[in-house]
Amino acid sequence: MNTFGHVFRVTTWGESHGPAIGCVIDGCPAGLKIDEEFIRREMERRRPGKWFASKRVETDRVEILSGILDGCTLGTPILMLIKNVDVDSKPYLKLRDVFRPGHADYTYWKKFGLRDWRGGGRASGRETAARVAAGAIAKQILGIFGISIFGYVREIGGIKCEVDDLELAMRLAKESEISCPDKEAEEKIVERIKEAMDEGDSLGGIIEVVAKNVPPGLGEPVFGKIDAYLAYAVMGIPAIKGVEIGRGFESARLKGSESNDQMSLRSGKIRFLSNNSGGVLGGISNGEEIIIRAAVKPTPSISKKQRTVNYKEMKDVEISVTGRHDPCIVPRAVPVVEAMVALVLVDLMMMQGLIPRSLTNHLQPET
Amino acid sequence: MNTFGHVFRVTTWGESHGPAIGCVIDGCPAGLKIDEEFIRREMERRRPGKWFASKRVETDRVEILSGILDGCTLGTPILMLIKNVDVDSKPYLKLRDVFRPGHADYTYWKKFGLRDWRGGGRASGRETAARVAAGAIAKQILGIFGISIFGYVREIGGIKCEVDDLELAMRLAKESEISCPDKEAEEKIVERIKEAMDEGDSLGGIIEVVAKNVPPGLGEPVFGKIDAYLAYAVMGIPAIKGVEIGRGFESARLKGSESNDQMSLRSGKIRFLSNNSGGVLGGISNGEEIIIRAAVKPTPSISKKQRTVNYKEMKDVEISVTGRHDPCIVPRAVPVVEAMVALVLVDLMMMQGLIPRSLTNHLQPET
Amino acid sequence: MNTFGHVFRVTTWGESHGPAIGCVIDGCPAGLKIDEEFIRREMERRRPGKWFASKRVETDRVEILSGILDGCTLGTPILMLIKNVDVDSKPYLKLRDVFRPGHADYTYWKKFGLRDWRGGGRASGRETAARVAAGAIAKQILGIFGISIFGYVREIGGIKCEVDDLELAMRLAKESEISCPDKEAEEKIVERIKEAMDEGDSLGGIIEVVAKNVPPGLGEPVFGKIDAYLAYAVMGIPAIKGVEIGRGFESARLKGSESNDQMSLRSGKIRFLSNNSGGVLGGISNGEEIIIRAAVKPTPSISKKQRTVNYKEMKDVEISVTGRHDPCIVPRAVPVVEAMVALVLVDLMMMQGLIPRSLTNHLQPET
Amino acid sequence: MNTFGHVFRVTTWGESHGPAIGCVIDGCPAGLKIDEEFIRREMERRRPGKWFASKRVETDRVEILSGILDGCTLGTPILMLIKNVDVDSKPYLKLRDVFRPGHADYTYWKKFGLRDWRGGGRASGRETAARVAAGAIAKQILGIFGISIFGYVREIGGIKCEVDDLELAMRLAKESEISCPDKEAEEKIVERIKEAMDEGDSLGGIIEVVAKNVPPGLGEPVFGKIDAYLAYAVMGIPAIKGVEIGRGFESARLKGSESNDQMSLRSGKIRFLSNNSGGVLGGISNGEEIIIRAAVKPTPSISKKQRTVNYKEMKDVEISVTGRHDPCIVPRAVPVVEAMVALVLVDLMMMQGLIPRSLTNHLQPET
Repeated sequence: MNTFGHVFRVTTWGESHGPAIGCVIDGCPAGLKIDEEFIRREMERRRPGKWFASKRVETDRVEILSGILDGCTLGTPILMLIKNVDVDSKPYLKLRDVFRPGHADYTYWKKFGLRDWRGGGRASGRETAARVAAGAIAKQILGIFGISIFGYVREIGGIKCEVDDLELAMRLAKESEISCPDKEAEEKIVERIKEAMDEGDSLGGIIEVVAKNVPPGLGEPVFGKIDAYLAYAVMGIPAIKGVEIGRGFESARLKGSESNDQMSLRSGKIRFLSNNSGGVLGGISNGEEIIIRAAVKPTPSISKKQRTVNYKEMKDVEISVTGRHDPCIVPRAVPVVEAMVALVLVDLMMMQGLIPRSLTNHLQPET
Repeated sequence: MNTFGHVFRVTTWGESHGPAIGCVIDGCPAGLKIDEEFIRREMERRRPGKWFASKRVETDRVEILSGILDGCTLGTPILMLIKNVDVDSKPYLKLRDVFRPGHADYTYWKKFGLRDWRGGGRASGRETAARVAAGAIAKQILGIFGISIFGYVREIGGIKCEVDDLELAMRLAKESEISCPDKEAEEKIVERIKEAMDEGDSLGGIIEVVAKNVPPGLGEPVFGKIDAYLAYAVMGIPAIKGVEIGRGFESARLKGSESNDQMSLRSGKIRFLSNNSGGVLGGISNGEEIIIRAAVKPTPSISKKQRTVNYKEMKDVEISVTGRHDPCIVPRAVPVVEAMVALVLVDLMMMQGLIPRSLTNHLQPET
Repeated sequence: MNTFGHVFRVTTWGESHGPAIGCVIDGCPAGLKIDEEFIRREMERRRPGKWFASKRVETDRVEILSGILDGCTLGTPILMLIKNVDVDSKPYLKLRDVFRPGHADYTYWKKFGLRDWRGGGRASGRETAARVAAGAIAKQILGIFGISIFGYVREIGGIKCEVDDLELAMRLAKESEISCPDKEAEEKIVERIKEAMDEGDSLGGIIEVVAKNVPPGLGEPVFGKIDAYLAYAVMGIPAIKGVEIGRGFESARLKGSESNDQMSLRSGKIRFLSNNSGGVLGGISNGEEIIIRAAVKPTPSISKKQRTVNYKEMKDVEISVTGRHDPCIVPRAVPVVEAMVALVLVDLMMMQGLIPRSLTNHLQPET
Repeated sequence: MNTFGHVFRVTTWGESHGPAIGCVIDGCPAGLKIDEEFIRREMERRRPGKWFASKRVETDRVEILSGILDGCTLGTPILMLIKNVDVDSKPYLKLRDVFRPGHADYTYWKKFGLRDWRGGGRASGRETAARVAAGAIAKQILGIFGISIFGYVREIGGIKCEVDDLELAMRLAKESEISCPDKEAEEKIVERIKEAMDEGDSLGGIIEVVAKNVPPGLGEPVFGKIDAYLAYAVMGIPAIKGVEIGRGFESARLKGSESNDQMSLRSGKIRFLSNNSGGVLGGISNGEEIIIRAAVKPTPSISKKQRTVNYKEMKDVEISVTGRHDPCIVPRAVPVVEAMVALVLVDLMMMQGLIPRSLTNHLQPET
């Protein structure tokens, strides 16, 4: 179950402290010119090394070993490989026989009978680098069809960002080191992250992602609905504990007359008068902006003392998780959520027949 | 995409106003004694006809046409058929050429180029009867392994239910007509629903479902994680706009030291000291209770005037959706959420090898 | 695993002596006018009751319970139901505790721990009626694109049919009660079948199916190749023991210079000078006729004495399988092979984006 | 569609003249000790460089970049990478604008709108190296359960090998450079291959693979039958044109009384008295040896003059395919067929619940 997607299928592989991580993309249309610089920029957004992030130094350079010829996709599987450059498993040695609270140590052990103790292995957030790489290809395909995806930090440590104008927010978030679209909130958030760092603690937050120009008709009822598919895609990102579409949990408190998006003609076209639905009706896109929010729990690696169990010796212990961890993973998770949304949209567009198998405007030989 | 599941696979079929609806279950273990009375009771919980629900009178009797012999599963596909008894498409005739706000009319039309105008067709909540039927089989399988699933109304129309003791809540919710575990809140909710009915309006709410005795090790990283799978299952239910696991969106506001569930030994067993994670770590069940909440939007069918478009004549119109609708679908959605959770759990248990292909303790012929 | 197909997906269900059998088709394009008379004719070709076939009298009338409105597909699942009318399980009672040689009795028992002893249950050839019903829908879709599928008996009981002109063969086979395109061979075959009947024995044979006007480009390397997919589809039909494409096993004895289909231009189009490949190169259709042959083993139900084991008493026994069986199933299997080929072609065309999700030339509302 | 398998899933990637080829194995049980020397030996059997094979010099060393720790599988995806060392695309430059007869050049072009002209790209037999690597893992798993797979050349260029004693054949075939179990036939075959080489031509043949100790109960009716699955697996290997199980096409000429495998008790166990069925009844393994044969067409690359079309200039041309090709691919295809059979068996065993998710006899921490 390391494959995502039905037609545009991404299989990720690799452990945090193994020689490399990466993915295979199967089902990518032929004839796509790969923009390697765009991939690099996307990787950069998720890359560790910033002040509020892990100090691990990774170049996150993506090597493509198959599926392209002269920079153009062949329609065959694309192997993307990212070497793990700065691996240091030593800090994990002393945690080898304990289950770190909030981590997958215990559950991997219960499931597989053994576990990769080096940096979380496959459960590490590092795996998401492969998702961003695959998402960068997906975004390029969407770009051909005028579809864009934009994510930003909605809230960190309880401090909410005010967003009135989405276009402005997009610009501000891009300029912000922590993808925050509200200057005032940003300052407070930075302060709070630093406090958490000082306390040896960590913070969570909320991310919002918006997809624009999504054509109506995407989503496959009744078990491949676009909202269900997005929820699946986003909830599967490490540390995500909640997902909502449009007004989400708020809509539980509205009346039908407040929640329904009414419709009318504008310049001869059918238009919705509001977008409480977040662009989804009956599990199918309605042409409005797709809006999805995700709750990110605080990073479980904290240096504060915590109780846990040493399972080799079967005794209670107290641990402090040191090493190179993110006091707040939320900003780095933004491109990951975007990537998953991009994968969903490309896949559904291919299922709906909106993306041809070949993007070449090739001169077919007459047959 | 009308099939749910990987190993225990449920395919639902049928339109609200067609001759019948139902499902095929493929991959059910052989040798399961089917308890038809239990299926009947589960169907009863979702059945329309109560004061706060649609006035459509359906018996919702499930006929099983294949996959069983002498009341016992054969391991072959189980066809479940529910006749549509009380169909009245007349009220929909006048809405035939308009898109009802909040409904899937517009999106189905955009996707398929035509739509079943009779009662919402496949997008009707009636489709979920087939899910409850399949879920009843899944619950019986889970019961063999001591796993139980219990759902209740957490909130309707903004009125929250207080739940301190889950065992008590379970008992109270079962006695409550609206699956409400808090007597005081129940009275207020009933009042509010009646108000909404009088106004020709509708209400939404929040449902919580708890699964007990779930073994650790369920969930298939990185794209078949139990939380992602649950989110997918529940978000795909009609009218659901948000899903959260454990502390969910609240955990975005916690610190790591508050959010992490610490561990210790108790009577020689490894135990979690809290369950903020809702029973899931790294996308794998940890043996604690699985807790999931879903936000239900208010029923879109309201008799209050709404603006929309007649697409045959391409002109703005105002409509009032009359007919037999639910002013509040939340209580009837409880067994549907439970059913989807049951389907997920059975499927993951089979993937983990915890449910044998045959439940018979048959005397194998020596070979 | 009772579902066939990736996009156009058919799930069959039902036991030979249960109340009904049938299938669900998921992924059928919307806007297809269903020709019920065509379905009836296809069912008739496979129907029992002819002199060389089982004496069971089935009307094999297909009821469609979902997925259509006013005779037109909605794009939602199509439930097809065929009642089992003439069920007589009595002759099987005395075989209840033995494994009939050549049948699936033993293997179903080993797999599921129990088995449906009534007429073979799910392993009965009766299950293929549902495939023919689904194939009839697939053929209608293919017809829109000018693709036709035609099968005939190539050989029965060792007597080969001569076929020089495929058009002529098609006409003769249609007129022949046993789908035989060679009058001379037909007489001998009928004679041989009658001999086998008199001996209480049965015969096998070879079926050839040809698909015309198949567009080039169908097939999904490297694990969804059209030849692999056809082999999978046809080998899974009961009683099939071999499958070959084009020259098949004969090509193992050719040289490269004899086997390769050379190419040249004709009226400005690229053409193959021969079709040894049977229309497939590198697992992708090349635009030539797809040619597939299947070996059918003789019906295992024979009245001749056979040794087997009574597994309740664990002792050797001799049995004679009486009841209503086919001395030669080959002619009735022809429409089944055709149906499976049709399912493969529709599925691959949808995967290649050659069949739209909606076949309506609907006037889209301007949005 | 570059993924094979349902539970034990192999995704292959890579072009013949790209930097590398390989595969990802997803779903491999945890706790398997990887025998790298065994992988090396399996790769060696398929490796080019022998007198009758392509002169391309590949080391075919398999690097494992993920999914293992200390030589033991983690239950996470296993990335296997094989560098393409000896790539020489020059001979293909002059064939860049023509379709080589018998190759996939034309069909890839029609499907994807462009093609990798360098050595056949993805359609090259080189892709099968990744299958052998994956198969080597599968064989190790099967070995734990006592299941072995053995293939040999049954026929080349029309010269048949006599096989009376399978154990003896196995030994002889292993000693034979061309996997031939019959010394006398081997000499004639070598002679014939040399003749074909001198003529600039090529030869095909037939391969038989036998799987021993396969437990009964494998196979998932009605669309995941073991014979259908094997046919799919083997027909998808490049150059295969026919597949048969047990007596195969021969059984079409038998009577039921000759074809049925009768049963009796031997030492208190149920036994079949013959194995015409090739170990499969009703699409489920019956505990006897699984026997499968595949027809291999002659290598399409021949230096003999052939007619084809230059599609850039749209004119008829004659070509001679020079370069490093195999005059007879049959012996090198033997381990490929074995590998595909191994993948099918492991997958079906996991589906039947016969292989646990974890092969560690780990000391589970008491919970």
